Amino acid sequence: MISARCYPTGTVTQIDPEDVSEAIKRPEQLVWVDVAAPTPADLALLQDEFSLHVLAMEDVRHRNQRPKLEHYPDHAFLVAYTAQQREVDIFIGPAWLITVRDDDQADDASFIEGALKRFERTRPEHATVGFLLYVVLDELVDGYFIRNDEVEEELEKLEERIFAEGPLDERLIQQELFDVRRRLLSYRRLAVPTRDVLTALLRRDVEWIDDNALTHLQDVFDHVLRVIDTVDNHRELMGNAVDAHLTIISNRMNSVMKRMTSWGAILLGSTLVAGIYGMNFDHMPELHWRLGYPFALAIMACITVVGYRWFRSRDWL
Amino acid sequence: MISARCYPTGTVTQIDPEDVSEAIKRPEQLVWVDVAAPTPADLALLQDEFSLHVLAMEDVRHRNQRPKLEHYPDHAFLVAYTAQQREVDIFIGPAWLITVRDDDQADDASFIEGALKRFERTRPEHATVGFLLYVVLDELVDGYFIRNDEVEEELEKLEERIFAEGPLDERLIQQELFDVRRRLLSYRRLAVPTRDVLTALLRRDVEWIDDNALTHLQDVFDHVLRVIDTVDNHRELMGNAVDAHLTIISNRMNSVMKRMTSWGAILLGSTLVAGIYGMNFDHMPELHWRLGYPFALAIMACITVVGYRWFRSRDWL
Amino acid sequence: MISARCYPTGTVTQIDPEDVSEAIKRPEQLVWVDVAAPTPADLALLQDEFSLHVLAMEDVRHRNQRPKLEHYPDHAFLVAYTAQQREVDIFIGPAWLITVRDDDQADDASFIEGALKRFERTRPEHATVGFLLYVVLDELVDGYFIRNDEVEEELEKLEERIFAEGPLDERLIQQELFDVRRRLLSYRRLAVPTRDVLTALLRRDVEWIDDNALTHLQDVFDHVLRVIDTVDNHRELMGNAVDAHLTIISNRMNSVMKRMTSWGAILLGSTLVAGIYGMNFDHMPELHWRLGYPFALAIMACITVVGYRWFRSRDWL
Amino acid sequence: MISARCYPTGTVTQIDPEDVSEAIKRPEQLVWVDVAAPTPADLALLQDEFSLHVLAMEDVRHRNQRPKLEHYPDHAFLVAYTAQQREVDIFIGPAWLITVRDDDQADDASFIEGALKRFERTRPEHATVGFLLYVVLDELVDGYFIRNDEVEEELEKLEERIFAEGPLDERLIQQELFDVRRRLLSYRRLAVPTRDVLTALLRRDVEWIDDNALTHLQDVFDHVLRVIDTVDNHRELMGNAVDAHLTIISNRMNSVMKRMTSWGAILLGSTLVAGIYGMNFDHMPELHWRLGYPFALAIMACITVVGYRWFRSRDWL
Amino acid sequence: MISARCYPTGTVTQIDPEDVSEAIKRPEQLVWVDVAAPTPADLALLQDEFSLHVLAMEDVRHRNQRPKLEHYPDHAFLVAYTAQQREVDIFIGPAWLITVRDDDQADDASFIEGALKRFERTRPEHATVGFLLYVVLDELVDGYFIRNDEVEEELEKLEERIFAEGPLDERLIQQELFDVRRRLLSYRRLAVPTRDVLTALLRRDVEWIDDNALTHLQDVFDHVLRVIDTVDNHRELMGNAVDAHLTIISNRMNSVMKRMTSWGAILLGSTLVAGIYGMNFDHMPELHWRLGYPFALAIMACITVVGYRWFRSRDWL
Repeated sequence: MISARCYPTGTVTQIDPEDVSEAIKRPEQLVWVDVAAPTPADLALLQDEFSLHVLAMEDVRHRNQRPKLEHYPDHAFLVAYTAQQREVDIFIGPAWLITVRDDDQADDASFIEGALKRFERTRPEHATVGFLLYVVLDELVDGYFIRNDEVEEELEKLEERIFAEGPLDERLIQQELFDVRRRLLSYRRLAVPTRDVLTALLRRDVEWIDDNALTHLQDVFDHVLRVIDTVDNHRELMGNAVDAHLTIISNRMNSVMKRMTSWGAILLGSTLVAGIYGMNFDHMPELHWRLGYPFALAIMACITVVGYRWFRSRDWL
Repeated sequence: MISARCYPTGTVTQIDPEDVSEAIKRPEQLVWVDVAAPTPADLALLQDEFSLHVLAMEDVRHRNQRPKLEHYPDHAFLVAYTAQQREVDIFIGPAWLITVRDDDQADDASFIEGALKRFERTRPEHATVGFLLYVVLDELVDGYFIRNDEVEEELEKLEERIFAEGPLDERLIQQELFDVRRRLLSYRRLAVPTRDVLTALLRRDVEWIDDNALTHLQDVFDHVLRVIDTVDNHRELMGNAVDAHLTIISNRMNSVMKRMTSWGAILLGSTLVAGIYGMNFDHMPELHWRLGYPFALAIMACITVVGYRWFRSRDWL
Repeated sequence: MISARCYPTGTVTQIDPEDVSEAIKRPEQLVWVDVAAPTPADLALLQDEFSLHVLAMEDVRHRNQRPKLEHYPDHAFLVAYTAQQREVDIFIGPAWLITVRDDDQADDASFIEGALKRFERTRPEHATVGFLLYVVLDELVDGYFIRNDEVEEELEKLEERIFAEGPLDERLIQQELFDVRRRLLSYRRLAVPTRDVLTALLRRDVEWIDDNALTHLQDVFDHVLRVIDTVDNHRELMGNAVDAHLTIISNRMNSVMKRMTSWGAILLGSTLVAGIYGMNFDHMPELHWRLGYPFALAIMACITVVGYRWFRSRDWL
Repeated sequence: MISARCYPTGTVTQIDPEDVSEAIKRPEQLVWVDVAAPTPADLALLQDEFSLHVLAMEDVRHRNQRPKLEHYPDHAFLVAYTAQQREVDIFIGPAWLITVRDDDQADDASFIEGALKRFERTRPEHATVGFLLYVVLDELVDGYFIRNDEVEEELEKLEERIFAEGPLDERLIQQELFDVRRRLLSYRRLAVPTRDVLTALLRRDVEWIDDNALTHLQDVFDHVLRVIDTVDNHRELMGNAVDAHLTIISNRMNSVMKRMTSWGAILLGSTLVAGIYGMNFDHMPELHWRLGYPFALAIMACITVVGYRWFRSRDWL
Repeated sequence: MISARCYPTGTVTQIDPEDVSEAIKRPEQLVWVDVAAPTPADLALLQDEFSLHVLAMEDVRHRNQRPKLEHYPDHAFLVAYTAQQREVDIFIGPAWLITVRDDDQADDASFIEGALKRFERTRPEHATVGFLLYVVLDELVDGYFIRNDEVEEELEKLEERIFAEGPLDERLIQQELFDVRRRLLSYRRLAVPTRDVLTALLRRDVEWIDDNALTHLQDVFDHVLRVIDTVDNHRELMGNAVDAHLTIISNRMNSVMKRMTSWGAILLGSTLVAGIYGMNFDHMPELHWRLGYPFALAIMACITVVGYRWFRSRDWL
């Protein structure tokens, strides 16, 4: 599904994809072609109309590239990812921008919708391709912050559970910890090359981006830096949480051992008393006492109480 | 709440915020506008008077930026953080400086108060905007050292507790260790980009800062380096403390195990003796001895004493 | 086994290795000499015909170099590795390319076969040595992705086993974890210098590579970056899995300890009761009760049931 | 306490601190002013005589800077630390050098004494300020090596204790390990910026240092590199020692567990035998045997011997 | 012991050390002076003849430098280490090379012997000092590979032992692991600065080294890179092995705990049965059964068999 929007001075005209070739020939115009879930035919049409480079088209077809910026004589090719890890391919020409993405109905709050609204609301009279690129990238990076907040929340819940008192399904916690770490990792792998892409743009690698747009892209760059910062922070916090968790488990075992020892000693002590009075010696005066039996029970009770208190005082029970 | 101070040659005049636009037109003057807890109207007024860049104003409104320095044609925009992690936004013009902060009554020893006093005490006759910026940043970074000392103290207390002999609430220690590590992390995340901001200033990215001020900013830069150094040091010490703690816990478990084994063996030995003399054989000579019972008790006592000494000598008890 | 292919304008002629010296003298031609499992005589022939540098020839003879690019006055020498860690040595001349590899029948899907087919299918009319090099390197790096997928699958299986409930042969898991980590390590050691080789090529260190080929090599470079990214990701995931595994084992021990304590306490309690009623006191009323025996058994049953429930409620059983 | 030494061509004259201002005006002279435990008045005098920069003087007053080199128009300011972590501040002028340190009688083998003796012994006829600086810094860095050797010795002792067989006060070892790691850390924090200071000197940041002195400072630079190398080495060794220690403790616990299990099984086996012959069945033939009692004891002895051997053979005892 | 070899055009003449000063004056000659276990007099002679720099001579006397390259006006000074960690000092002049080493009879396969043989076998007609340096350094670095292989073998043996089933002297394994890690560390500390030395040589820091020699030194550089690569690889593998080892130990403890619990439960169960039938109740029908005793023994046997099977089925035994 190809939809082309053409921005002459001040008005918004949705033009026919087939007429795009004419539109881009009029230099005073800015054309934004958005392609969702492209068919091979759509891609062939685009390649013809805008004479897109064959290697870039191959990347679009195979998908699953890392974020990158490639500069060809007539246009630049930029690969970026949304926070939902969906690839967005962007072609940047002198007066046109093409965005190619997988699908448009899956996600209600599609970021392209957002970018479109924001562009039409904030664009200056003579909007350049640089400004349009800024709006698209900024919208995309804003999505990252929302994801970051979600991860932060998850991390806080995990922490709470790790430091909680009650019994836990540790296998589950481990699996969740592992999953969050995995996601942070894959997330970072998108953000870091995106930073490099923006560094290249700010280095003026693409000549069609005007100075004003560069100032705006600097802002996006700062946001990406903040995203990476936050992700690194989360990763280190996860590592610390794992450390703390291991110590807590070791510790719990320690405390179980102590209880075991304590109760074992108390029970064994009483058992020993019972064993002693179960001996068959001919001459054991206690056995013939009237209160011999209560006396033995009293000794056991005494062992239990004294033992309990003693272990308690040493914090073993 | 906007308060503007205007420094003509030698005297201090507090001028009306509305008259600021006139004041900044007189080049021989240095104007310091301090804005606390700004309302949208305050910000609009500032933006108009000083023609501040729209992106910078957006950052001021959204807050929560990373420390950064942005250079616009007419002014520079600097984001910094106090040691209490409160954001301070600074606009640097050729002859004026604007500081924007969240609130001014929360913190008695507000760093802006300190900067103000210090500036009025130490400023040379022809104070430049560079010197004013130096005073503000130096005051801010000085706050970091106080924080560092607090962290150091906390760390020492934690260490003491980790290496202490008595029983501990390990869960609590873990949580505190985790919290200190988290704070060190977030603290470092402020200091490192602040260093980059100062590097940019020292690279003469802002042309209104004179050579004398640069010499002073070099000093602030050294301080920030020292802060980062100290934080890294603390982080590594925390890591070492965590290692040591884990080993100590493992070790305690080891010693609990040894005691358990030792007492278990002693008690079981005595129980075995009791069990033997509880057997019902027709022919057990000891049972008929006059002193059979004391003899059995003596064996048990003997097992206990010898066992205790033996385990003691091997450092198991 | 030397096979030489000569590409004049448009047609493919397989020429005799002995005539190669003449072929390379005709500048309009591109010659690709492929040598499999070379004998010393083959290598001497090549060295003579193409006046290859003595140090490069020594590397070819000794094998087992790291991936590298060396520039000699008349030609460049490039060492690369297939995903199966087999060395491929490549000599790059102004109009000829020599590939030297160990053996050609071992691997059905030999990457040179693939490169050959692809080159003959996609080559432009005037194919340069740069384009030929691109095809060879791209085919080689594509193999890396397949390997990556295999590793990923293995890793997923290991994860599944680590987080599984049932009993495991832990020694085996450890050995497999160790082996996967070792392989990732040796894999990374090939990919990183391959990236450096491509960086050198893109820096125009070899002057016979035309601009068009450079654009294509940029694509290979991106792929290598992605490979390294993925390997690093896998390595970190392995590290996380090892962490998780250690915690799970600690945890299992914890749970074994708890069970042990629980059952130990229950059994010892019952034993104590039996011991008490095995004492030989003259006056123990319970012994003479008609239902004394069932009463004692009931106490034991009671201890078992109550103990079981109590431990159960604390998640110890 | 200020002491000034003035080196005219060939002779050594100790001049009066008050006359220093005159001495430094005679260009053919080299003046070395050494200040120990300076009073505020001393510092004011120095600042006046040599017109030292106010920021540098502040650093001297506040102490506790990181090692650094600051270049002012008329002189350079260098902060360094002795191996005993005492700060030494050095002002470098075209023909004078000022060393400021805390105290001079605390340490008999004060490094300034050493530098003085060495300078007077080795100085060439026309000694420059660069050569004097070299002597001071080299003497200072030489102290680092002695410290390194001390740390090495400590580390070796710790290692020996970790790998020793006998019982240990593990808490103490942990504390010592932690302390050594802490000292290595603080030590490294001095050495790394000292390296940067020397890099700056070798980059000719201070113009009064002649080429000959630079060659000598290159030597000091190499020594600092070696110090950092050694410290890093020690740190990694400490980390390895901590790893090894943890494994050894885990292992000891393992062996304690095995012993516990083994002896527990043997004692429980014998107790079971005693329990069996303590049962009150009417018909237990063994009870009426003449040798029943020795028979039971023999069974117990047998269990003990066989059990002991069996566990021994499996290396559990 | 000084031995000087002089290479005029084509012939090898061993010249007298005292005549060296004359030899080096004839520019068409290349002189190689090899000094083994030098006496102070030897060093003084060398210093006089070749006017070697005093700082370099001091380094030769004190030994134990890090690998480095120092450039003096008339010659360069290079410190390198053999794989056996013996220092070799090399002076490089326009037409002479001096190698100074500790001792020559200790090591039969002395690398200098090897270098000599190789130089005389492979030298071109007009051998330069650069080519001679290449031969010496290449011979030296080749020794590193042999060492690497030894370490690899050791590592493989350690791995085998770690993953083996039988009982181990863990303290010994830990000590060996620690020793191998220490050696890898000290080994790396030699290789890394050697790489820097070669980088400096390739940067043409020493002007007497001709282009042809540079091409050869590039080869040595590649070898050093490979050595560092391999060492880093080994270090990471060691780290992984330590991780695996710790997990295996934890795991073994787990399995010991399970056995302990299992056998404890079985033995305690039987003991309880014995205890029950040892109670002295008047009315216990089983006691009067004819087959009461075998019945009780049967219950115990039953507990043992069922318990054993049950635990076996859960993989606890």
